[in-house]
Amino acid sequence: MKLEKPIQDYYPDELSYCYGCGRLNEHGLHIQSFWDGEKSIARFTPEEYHIAIPGFVYGGLLASLIDCHGTGTAAAAAYQAQGRIPGTEPHLRFVTASLKVDFLKPTPLGVELMLVGTVKEITGRKGVVEIELLANHQVCVKGEVVAVEIASRKLPNK
Amino acid sequence: MKLEKPIQDYYPDELSYCYGCGRLNEHGLHIQSFWDGEKSIARFTPEEYHIAIPGFVYGGLLASLIDCHGTGTAAAAAYQAQGRIPGTEPHLRFVTASLKVDFLKPTPLGVELMLVGTVKEITGRKGVVEIELLANHQVCVKGEVVAVEIASRKLPNK
Repeated sequence: MKLEKPIQDYYPDELSYCYGCGRLNEHGLHIQSFWDGEKSIARFTPEEYHIAIPGFVYGGLLASLIDCHGTGTAAAAAYQAQGRIPGTEPHLRFVTASLKVDFLKPTPLGVELMLVGTVKEITGRKGVVEIELLANHQVCVKGEVVAVEIASRKLPNK
Repeated sequence: MKLEKPIQDYYPDELSYCYGCGRLNEHGLHIQSFWDGEKSIARFTPEEYHIAIPGFVYGGLLASLIDCHGTGTAAAAAYQAQGRIPGTEPHLRFVTASLKVDFLKPTPLGVELMLVGTVKEITGRKGVVEIELLANHQVCVKGEVVAVEIASRKLPNK
């Protein structure tokens, strides 16, 4: 099931303040994950100050991109597994239980990065997502996100 | 060997633009790691917009803190292993090869966080650092950073 909007656009308002991907966080990165039914794609161009050493992107930012793209992908896959359209209730919103990032080569600054997410496992309230991050068509970083769905009863009341 | 200044203050200027810990990156987080000869300590208070869901700190920021505190700790330990004071040449500056972060419980916003780094291995040009991140004296996150020293000949000329 291909989604027309980024998965983050389906999150309810009260769960849309994430610094990484919340559309309502005015200071945030606004990561957007597009789900085509099998894979997820996110594109992001770092700012010039997002560097580790001059010319190369800061690893913490890359970890952040992988983090939010992973939880977003898990949410999209979970809705699909339930045969539901994102945004329908009960809402499914995943947070990260564990994050693993391997920096295979320095990620160059100044180009658009692409993240490709693949769902390795989606069972009940747990999702495991593998992510490749590419620059100039080369895989620079590999990540794995173990995401867990946060039960509605634990959601903040706002 | 206890260092008087945070390890990042000993980095040469051209390697001090990291978004996470570079003292010369005006947009950055300015993470500072204090080494006492055995362990490293960093303290950081997230901004109110550094959230995942309201009330809790964004995981990508926590990964960033662990990342820079890990490479800084590896540098401090590497100088010590060589019997040298940081800042003496040749400079030792580590970057992250691999990062693993386990989010054990949600990290509350609004309090100062403390990171405690322990060197698990420091051999040649590789360092492995384990980090515990605490809020309100409770360990909320555990991380492991595998850091590699970047050879001086690969450093940018600025």
